[in-house]
Amino acid sequence: MLAYQKLTEHYKNISHFSHLASICHWDQATMMPSGGNDARASAMAALSVHLHQLSTDKNLEAFFQNAKSENLNVEETANLLEMKRAFDLATVLPEKHVKEKSLAGSRCEHAWRTQRQNNDWAGFCENFKTVVALSKEEAQIRADASGLSPYDAMLDIYEPGMTCEKLDLLFSDLKAWLPELTQKVQEKQSKEFYLRPNEIYKTTQQNELGLSVMAYLGFDFNHGRLDISTHPFCGGVNTDVRITTRYDEADFVQSLMGIIHETGHARYEQGLPCHFSSLPAGQARSMGMHESQSLFFEMQLGRSQGFIQTLSPLACAHFPHNDPDVFKTENLQKIYTRVQPGLIRVDADELTYPAHIMLRYEIERDLINGKITYKDIPELWDLKMKEYLNMDTQGNFKNGCMQDIHWCDGSFGYFPSYTLGAMYAAQFMATIKKAMDVDDLIRSGDLTPVFNWLDTNIWKKGSLLTTDALVMQATGEILNPAYFKKHLIDRYL
Amino acid sequence: MLAYQKLTEHYKNISHFSHLASICHWDQATMMPSGGNDARASAMAALSVHLHQLSTDKNLEAFFQNAKSENLNVEETANLLEMKRAFDLATVLPEKHVKEKSLAGSRCEHAWRTQRQNNDWAGFCENFKTVVALSKEEAQIRADASGLSPYDAMLDIYEPGMTCEKLDLLFSDLKAWLPELTQKVQEKQSKEFYLRPNEIYKTTQQNELGLSVMAYLGFDFNHGRLDISTHPFCGGVNTDVRITTRYDEADFVQSLMGIIHETGHARYEQGLPCHFSSLPAGQARSMGMHESQSLFFEMQLGRSQGFIQTLSPLACAHFPHNDPDVFKTENLQKIYTRVQPGLIRVDADELTYPAHIMLRYEIERDLINGKITYKDIPELWDLKMKEYLNMDTQGNFKNGCMQDIHWCDGSFGYFPSYTLGAMYAAQFMATIKKAMDVDDLIRSGDLTPVFNWLDTNIWKKGSLLTTDALVMQATGEILNPAYFKKHLIDRYL
Repeated sequence: MLAYQKLTEHYKNISHFSHLASICHWDQATMMPSGGNDARASAMAALSVHLHQLSTDKNLEAFFQNAKSENLNVEETANLLEMKRAFDLATVLPEKHVKEKSLAGSRCEHAWRTQRQNNDWAGFCENFKTVVALSKEEAQIRADASGLSPYDAMLDIYEPGMTCEKLDLLFSDLKAWLPELTQKVQEKQSKEFYLRPNEIYKTTQQNELGLSVMAYLGFDFNHGRLDISTHPFCGGVNTDVRITTRYDEADFVQSLMGIIHETGHARYEQGLPCHFSSLPAGQARSMGMHESQSLFFEMQLGRSQGFIQTLSPLACAHFPHNDPDVFKTENLQKIYTRVQPGLIRVDADELTYPAHIMLRYEIERDLINGKITYKDIPELWDLKMKEYLNMDTQGNFKNGCMQDIHWCDGSFGYFPSYTLGAMYAAQFMATIKKAMDVDDLIRSGDLTPVFNWLDTNIWKKGSLLTTDALVMQATGEILNPAYFKKHLIDRYL
Repeated sequence: MLAYQKLTEHYKNISHFSHLASICHWDQATMMPSGGNDARASAMAALSVHLHQLSTDKNLEAFFQNAKSENLNVEETANLLEMKRAFDLATVLPEKHVKEKSLAGSRCEHAWRTQRQNNDWAGFCENFKTVVALSKEEAQIRADASGLSPYDAMLDIYEPGMTCEKLDLLFSDLKAWLPELTQKVQEKQSKEFYLRPNEIYKTTQQNELGLSVMAYLGFDFNHGRLDISTHPFCGGVNTDVRITTRYDEADFVQSLMGIIHETGHARYEQGLPCHFSSLPAGQARSMGMHESQSLFFEMQLGRSQGFIQTLSPLACAHFPHNDPDVFKTENLQKIYTRVQPGLIRVDADELTYPAHIMLRYEIERDLINGKITYKDIPELWDLKMKEYLNMDTQGNFKNGCMQDIHWCDGSFGYFPSYTLGAMYAAQFMATIKKAMDVDDLIRSGDLTPVFNWLDTNIWKKGSLLTTDALVMQATGEILNPAYFKKHLIDRYL
């Protein structure tokens, strides 16, 4: 057998155990009674150990060496690169470091759940300083192995090929026009009146509306399902994608758009290339690309006027006993495009969201590259919130620098993915609009041509191309933030 | 570290992977969309291979050797015996044989699903003859290793310590009085009138009634849940027990008693000894003992007059729009104790069920011990159905010898567990009734003393004792079928 074949068998075996991990993780978040948690945690830990052993199997080194000289086609070569990338990411850290960081992360995250409620920054720092130290150590090890800077090496985990140099350019551009645009839009919207949802919207009806919208968006229910969890996510495996939402009976707005967002993630997974299913080249390209699909569905499609025109009668029909004026197109449109700077990232609107990301990016970049320490975070947070969103967060750690889970376990380098996703999504939509009349398709009720474009240009590419090559093939240029700017101006001004 | 400790760590690790297998199996039966099946089957197969490797790890042999001379207490000694038993059961068969039988079993079962519908015995035999040949080979290998007869060696997998000698005694006793009793009861009941359910009983209401009854029976919802599947089962793990049922809106009778049955299995699992959780000595004693708990709940408690008196107003309250006369105690009692010989085992009542088991036992015993061949099965089936239940099944393979799934994959030796369970259950109830007034407790609405007895005498014993020792400690004697006979006569004559 060729070394390449031996490698693919090994990575297929890994994917089988990842499959079990995904399903059991989904079960934990949606189905498991709380008393089952301890035994489940132990079972999941045993599975992690097994997966780590498989991922760092020293025997693979010789296969990687031999596979290089084997006669592989373009796709096999891409798959070999991705397998090697996965192997390097897994093996570069000493096992001792992996365990220490995992333990420190769990400890910090567990305590954070209470400390955040108590606005207890000092208490949080007791654990957080270890997480930061271990993350800096990790970044340095990855930097030494890759030749990248420490923070770039962390970025590369989530967004291969992305660097501070590129991000600084993107964000300095954003910084130049976003605060002013936000202010203008706020002024404009301050004169607008609209009806807020102010009734009971039953969970069963919200659920049925969600399922209708998923069907309209082409979610394949033969390969996935919708359930409820405290924190919405898209999980499972690409042949069986499990998306979740949470319902607030006082407000249908969040859960409905949340379902549309997760449906974007889900269609990417469901559309990944079958012939590389369960192999690294058949996985989603990056976290930013994944977010581009959820934001394409939520922002580019979901909040567009045409889509809301379709949504309006559907929502009316599912809530026959609620005030129909709330669901009128113009009103829904205003609900879904309202701009209001706030302290909390996850509650932010499309326009102010990137400010939350810039702020976090700048802080974590300097923290990992050693220009600041964790002690400087609150002051920097306050300064930047003032500068970007004109908000005061002094002393408010709870809804300031302690609001996110990402830093608790040392996931430094993840945040930029959100805004990269928004930018990719705008660029994809701009390209699609050159080829077809999207508003017309939405009005016709059949978005198939749009989904076909995504399927051909994004989903079916898996990780067979680099991100730059994928974006170039799809849109004729690499990431260009001008499309995002134009999209925001067109929609909000 | 002691060899004993090394062994327990190894078996805990095995239990973690069994945990994942149980949850994913439950998911497959209750939640998974059908398009997810192929990838899931591959993932489960990879897990099976891993579990097989762990279960047959040759390094364990030295630990077993050394642990024998270590200073272990009584419970540790029991656990060592159970670990060794698990190791021997897993390692005695050559891996090649395990794979061949697994493949032949899957093939036979898959084809059976269609062949049974088509009454195609000849087609079925094409696959079945291989399953029988491999099962006989397996029985012989196990016999050679254990010194038991081939069929006894198969029995021992499901019911350790059980033998044909004991079963022949039990069943020849049954055979002497059961057919006549059945006839008498039928004559008596032929003069009785009762109302059959003849309306729509909504799934949601059946489900809520089921949950109420589970709560009344002490099911711990912090460590388990109820869901729907085509074939009801009790799965999951003992810290998170997943029971299932199926609802027929034309008839609440089956699903309600099915839930009570599975609740019996579930309470056994939830009550197993925590300090041996995830170790072999902490598992249920045997399949017969497991069935004794489900039948204790279903037959000894569930169909008793006192319990049905409690059930009656509960059912009325959950079906406020249905005819209340159906739920009257006397009527429900008649529904749940109706005796009617039939062709199908799973539909059989309490009184005729053992006849179905005797018949299967006698056939599979002689088949595995080489006294008959698979070709003799239909004729023997017809003869015995005539003798035990006075029913004609000639030419009716579909509802005759092809009705069960057990033989398709070669699970010979399993069937006796059902009737052993019924006998144990009757003996346990007779013992409990000596210590307390069970009907009075049922009327008081608090069955705690009954459950405490089961918890102390059965559940908390796990596999720390042999079946005979467990039954002796609990009831003062080993299995005595006289209690079962008395129970049936008291209830039905």
